[in-house]
Amino acid sequence: MGMVGGGRDAFIGAVHRMAAWLDGKIDLVAGAFSSNPEKSKLSGSDLSIDPKRVYASYQAMVEEEAKLPAGERIDFVSIVTPNHVHFPVAKAFLEGGFNVVCDKPMTFNLEEALVLRDLVKKTAKVFALTHNYTGYPMVKEAREMVRRGDLGKILKVVAEYPQGWLLNPIDAEGQKQASWRTNPEQAGASSCIGDIGTHAENLGRYITGLEIEELCADFTTFIEGRRLEDDGNLLLHYQGGARGVLYASQISAGEENDVNIRVYGTKASLEWHQEYPDNLTVKYPDAPRRMFRRGNAYVSDTAKRFTRLPFGHPEAFIEAFANIYGEAARGIEAEVSGQALPKELDFPTVDDGVKGMAFIAAAVQSAKNGGVWTKMPKT
Amino acid sequence: MGMVGGGRDAFIGAVHRMAAWLDGKIDLVAGAFSSNPEKSKLSGSDLSIDPKRVYASYQAMVEEEAKLPAGERIDFVSIVTPNHVHFPVAKAFLEGGFNVVCDKPMTFNLEEALVLRDLVKKTAKVFALTHNYTGYPMVKEAREMVRRGDLGKILKVVAEYPQGWLLNPIDAEGQKQASWRTNPEQAGASSCIGDIGTHAENLGRYITGLEIEELCADFTTFIEGRRLEDDGNLLLHYQGGARGVLYASQISAGEENDVNIRVYGTKASLEWHQEYPDNLTVKYPDAPRRMFRRGNAYVSDTAKRFTRLPFGHPEAFIEAFANIYGEAARGIEAEVSGQALPKELDFPTVDDGVKGMAFIAAAVQSAKNGGVWTKMPKT
Amino acid sequence: MGMVGGGRDAFIGAVHRMAAWLDGKIDLVAGAFSSNPEKSKLSGSDLSIDPKRVYASYQAMVEEEAKLPAGERIDFVSIVTPNHVHFPVAKAFLEGGFNVVCDKPMTFNLEEALVLRDLVKKTAKVFALTHNYTGYPMVKEAREMVRRGDLGKILKVVAEYPQGWLLNPIDAEGQKQASWRTNPEQAGASSCIGDIGTHAENLGRYITGLEIEELCADFTTFIEGRRLEDDGNLLLHYQGGARGVLYASQISAGEENDVNIRVYGTKASLEWHQEYPDNLTVKYPDAPRRMFRRGNAYVSDTAKRFTRLPFGHPEAFIEAFANIYGEAARGIEAEVSGQALPKELDFPTVDDGVKGMAFIAAAVQSAKNGGVWTKMPKT
Amino acid sequence: MGMVGGGRDAFIGAVHRMAAWLDGKIDLVAGAFSSNPEKSKLSGSDLSIDPKRVYASYQAMVEEEAKLPAGERIDFVSIVTPNHVHFPVAKAFLEGGFNVVCDKPMTFNLEEALVLRDLVKKTAKVFALTHNYTGYPMVKEAREMVRRGDLGKILKVVAEYPQGWLLNPIDAEGQKQASWRTNPEQAGASSCIGDIGTHAENLGRYITGLEIEELCADFTTFIEGRRLEDDGNLLLHYQGGARGVLYASQISAGEENDVNIRVYGTKASLEWHQEYPDNLTVKYPDAPRRMFRRGNAYVSDTAKRFTRLPFGHPEAFIEAFANIYGEAARGIEAEVSGQALPKELDFPTVDDGVKGMAFIAAAVQSAKNGGVWTKMPKT
Repeated sequence: MGMVGGGRDAFIGAVHRMAAWLDGKIDLVAGAFSSNPEKSKLSGSDLSIDPKRVYASYQAMVEEEAKLPAGERIDFVSIVTPNHVHFPVAKAFLEGGFNVVCDKPMTFNLEEALVLRDLVKKTAKVFALTHNYTGYPMVKEAREMVRRGDLGKILKVVAEYPQGWLLNPIDAEGQKQASWRTNPEQAGASSCIGDIGTHAENLGRYITGLEIEELCADFTTFIEGRRLEDDGNLLLHYQGGARGVLYASQISAGEENDVNIRVYGTKASLEWHQEYPDNLTVKYPDAPRRMFRRGNAYVSDTAKRFTRLPFGHPEAFIEAFANIYGEAARGIEAEVSGQALPKELDFPTVDDGVKGMAFIAAAVQSAKNGGVWTKMPKT
Repeated sequence: MGMVGGGRDAFIGAVHRMAAWLDGKIDLVAGAFSSNPEKSKLSGSDLSIDPKRVYASYQAMVEEEAKLPAGERIDFVSIVTPNHVHFPVAKAFLEGGFNVVCDKPMTFNLEEALVLRDLVKKTAKVFALTHNYTGYPMVKEAREMVRRGDLGKILKVVAEYPQGWLLNPIDAEGQKQASWRTNPEQAGASSCIGDIGTHAENLGRYITGLEIEELCADFTTFIEGRRLEDDGNLLLHYQGGARGVLYASQISAGEENDVNIRVYGTKASLEWHQEYPDNLTVKYPDAPRRMFRRGNAYVSDTAKRFTRLPFGHPEAFIEAFANIYGEAARGIEAEVSGQALPKELDFPTVDDGVKGMAFIAAAVQSAKNGGVWTKMPKT
Repeated sequence: MGMVGGGRDAFIGAVHRMAAWLDGKIDLVAGAFSSNPEKSKLSGSDLSIDPKRVYASYQAMVEEEAKLPAGERIDFVSIVTPNHVHFPVAKAFLEGGFNVVCDKPMTFNLEEALVLRDLVKKTAKVFALTHNYTGYPMVKEAREMVRRGDLGKILKVVAEYPQGWLLNPIDAEGQKQASWRTNPEQAGASSCIGDIGTHAENLGRYITGLEIEELCADFTTFIEGRRLEDDGNLLLHYQGGARGVLYASQISAGEENDVNIRVYGTKASLEWHQEYPDNLTVKYPDAPRRMFRRGNAYVSDTAKRFTRLPFGHPEAFIEAFANIYGEAARGIEAEVSGQALPKELDFPTVDDGVKGMAFIAAAVQSAKNGGVWTKMPKT
Repeated sequence: MGMVGGGRDAFIGAVHRMAAWLDGKIDLVAGAFSSNPEKSKLSGSDLSIDPKRVYASYQAMVEEEAKLPAGERIDFVSIVTPNHVHFPVAKAFLEGGFNVVCDKPMTFNLEEALVLRDLVKKTAKVFALTHNYTGYPMVKEAREMVRRGDLGKILKVVAEYPQGWLLNPIDAEGQKQASWRTNPEQAGASSCIGDIGTHAENLGRYITGLEIEELCADFTTFIEGRRLEDDGNLLLHYQGGARGVLYASQISAGEENDVNIRVYGTKASLEWHQEYPDNLTVKYPDAPRRMFRRGNAYVSDTAKRFTRLPFGHPEAFIEAFANIYGEAARGIEAEVSGQALPKELDFPTVDDGVKGMAFIAAAVQSAKNGGVWTKMPKT
């Protein structure tokens, strides 16, 4: 694979690389690691990439890689830049004939997302979006439970993503991650909901299959001078009558990354926390609570397919991320060799990205209008 | 004490009695245990009450008890009836010269609450409302932390009270507790928020001291034929800018009574769950999480004052309830003996009841209007 | 009831009183609260006991109470003194015709225990020993599980009782509780194993029904100058081949009172912690873990019989203690009224006390001999 | 690197490979993956290894790899065979001039371990033993705490490694992992203590630095026909007076791999569980419990050095394993390039392996002699 972004002081690029490397099937062989050509070169050197394939810009990368013979050029690009660059890079590589793995949120705004969707359909390339939390085996188990009807009809979803890292104005003090994530020119119309609320939304949709019909959003910017919201609380109405509570926060002191979800059905409810990802708790009205644990013989074949270690030897974030990469790679391998894609591929697609951007757009609109109930835009 | 309500198949009456008995300072000596005189008599017999003081009605009880000499008549009445009877009973006993301990929600509606408040002021009797969760030592510790400024300025409060006991239409099937709690003639304008959401509201206010300015409420009745909501999700704006998420549910499969709260400040956050009431977790942006445990030397004098056992020997619901009774009894003892009330009495008062009823009223109004933001009524 | 011990600065006396009062069926009407007559008098006054029935010594108490008419005198005595006084007081009251509730360990040594057992049989009085942890509903549920065969054949038991309160030489500094509990003249031949290890042993025997065949004990006194061990670690061989690990400690920094037990069978294992007493976790080789919670419809009738509150409203230490009192009271009520004892009485008896003293004796002997495997004495 | 063992139906080989690949710095380029040459070939093909470097035996591998030019031949071998083959393979590669990473227990018996130690010293090659639990950042944090004196003087260590996977006679039924691990010809003199008890021992020594002086071991074989113990419980005396309880079990129903440790000192105690490896709990006699979490700014530089992800994004087993590989690789890189080894290398060495084998030998001897206290052999 090749990589765009992910240079020396980036965060998520390193995660993508470990996810790609873990199973020994994906090599990193090319990159445009920074918009600063010098930094790109140094980063490439850190990673022992052949200097000829360390590019000064993503445009140069598309152009040069496309010139390489089929067996030598990259099979796909991994896009790990700030949000506003996702779309142009994805567009360039898709049009250049490459498959794409892209970090979330998919694009800068909904309009770009719709264009990108058309482009993916037109080029028939593989496009995978790294909503990585859906890569956890016990999240997949949760989805299986809902699909099998173990929970009955879903009545209510509570999804939370509390963080505390922006409790102080580190963006104003120049911390790089904080700066671009709170900058509307780079992050888009939302910070907190765009960066992490969208993970909670995606997680809920992945597990339950429910689509939001309308929502009511309350955004707050607690830190003076910050340009985007750092806390967002939402009430949701799902199609079909289920209800939802969803919140994300960047100013919740001492919270780390405990994205979590509870799903309540007519027969049972489930609960999952990413900080303890091997556990999936199910509660019943009239039977003891059950804790399902990754790696056991009793979990679904789906959960098993995404498991590397025996029970009790914990798997975690990188392994889940690698599951997204592994599925994308299965698709890309087929695409590159001109075969039909495997049927049961399980990774977030451009359609998930469109829905995520629509969710952000609706939330921003509701919040701007003082918290009125707002329909999800047609996509 | 005497009791109104709490007969044979009641639930909360038995709890009030254990709370009263626990410390060996309060005796139950009279009662009108049911609106059915025969049932009242049988219940009185179960409780070994002198049959002369088992009354056929609360009216008879006020009248007869008032005739007894000062040292013999009850010092206070405990009201444990369904909601719609709270007000007339409280009124009768206050006017009859008795102190009152009353279950929550305080009255049937806000109007009654305001009248009751005036009456309490006028009669200068002790009136204690059993928002029992505030009786837990670690809830008191949480309040002390906020008061001392350990959390800094409060930014956000998340309070939840999920239950699952009304997931099936047991009210329609005649289960007594379920029937009256979902009947607008007995419960008032709200079931879920009135019965348990108000506990969450009270808990948040007790710990943080914050008052709600406006709210947005989404009520749902999931069970067909049920007349009041069985799920309520709210967004809150507190005076001074803090934000809140509050929900209560009676249809959350497998949930028992885990009322819980998280309070986020500029310096730290705290978390408390009533199902594990001896623990109070505090999270910091830059230091290890701390778990404060009841009974340790390091907790505040306030928390210590409400503790009976050494650390590690758990205390729970009845002990917390008894703490409300204990404080009410301290006040009543002073009142009965004509002394000034102790200054630092710590139990929910008629003012808390008014605020609780105002909260219910605002939530009902918001929900009826489709989830519009609604100001708290002036009280 | 009457009480011997439990005066002003005692700890366990207050617990016994709350346990007795909780259900409104037992009154405290007499006592010899201290070996110091003046202190006994003051303690009686604190408790609003009729001064005539506050005695200067337990001997006086037996004598005077026995003179009272049947309906007026105490039905039983509760013995809450330091260990070395248990036997003479119990003997005096049994011989005086009274039923007895006694704190543990039952006696000063095994010899006294055997004598006491004979006396109980001879007098045919009720004798209840407050191994209070067996009063927890979920401990009873655990026993039911084992009895029903849910766990299969029991292979291994791990029981722990770690405390940290004697980590500093507070006994040498005169702290009353610490002083007598580490004084061989008052506590007996063991401190740590006698005071709390015996609870762990009793808990294991109650749940599993297994009897220890032989044991190997390693005692350590970590605090210089202390006269009895403050840490004891044991390996156990049960009759029938099961194995055990049991330890108790008073010098485990930061531990409170988390007596806990794990029982491993051929079909499943269970785990219970007294600091979270409403939970009982069961693990299976091939099925999700289950957490049984007190108060649910699915628990056994036995567990239900000892439950006061609905699920999710936690019960704890005092309620469990009150379950011992409640069962003892059922027996005593029958005895006093000349009826046969109910069949399914569920409280620790003089036989449990004998086994506990035998366990202490064997452990002390093993430890003294350098940790050699030692058979349990014949009793 | 090259690998010996780890063919198609092996377990630990795959773990070693992921650990090696994770950070993108180690490639697998050669192997003798099975004692069955055909299986070795197929396994090599699965792994896309150049067929020329897939060998029919480890002997062939040493010979052929040694012939390759310095820059082309493997830098080290990873030994992931059953225990009885560790020694001959390690010997062959060390003597052939290669560095070694070896799974545990290090050798078949203590005698081999002593020979191997001499050989490592003589050849001056890097030898790393994969006691992988010491690779967890919070285990390293625990060691730092002890070293800094945060816990005071260590009094007691409780280490457990319960598993349940051998509760049924799957070894007799031919399950490959179970068969060799319970076969004294392949596993050595102990199964349970050798396979997992030694991890608990190593973990305790790593964190506390304490050396065992003598021990008392109780071994049981619960499954009929099994040739080695499947449950082992030990009491420990450490040099300097600390006490220990250590047990391992393979027949504990429903237990997965929760190796865990509690260390009690005069100032504080700590607790760590591998199933929740990002948490490290510290308890104090007189202050709230603290939970240290991986990835926070407040942890030691040592813990930080072994961390890949921000707080709240969990790391787990593979990352810890990769930390051992990463440190070994740092040493090997220096060795291969003829430089001095970095000073602060942090991986288990041949000395740890010798101590582990001595521990196993002493435990086996004690158990064979009926649980007598047995001194650790001089090594």
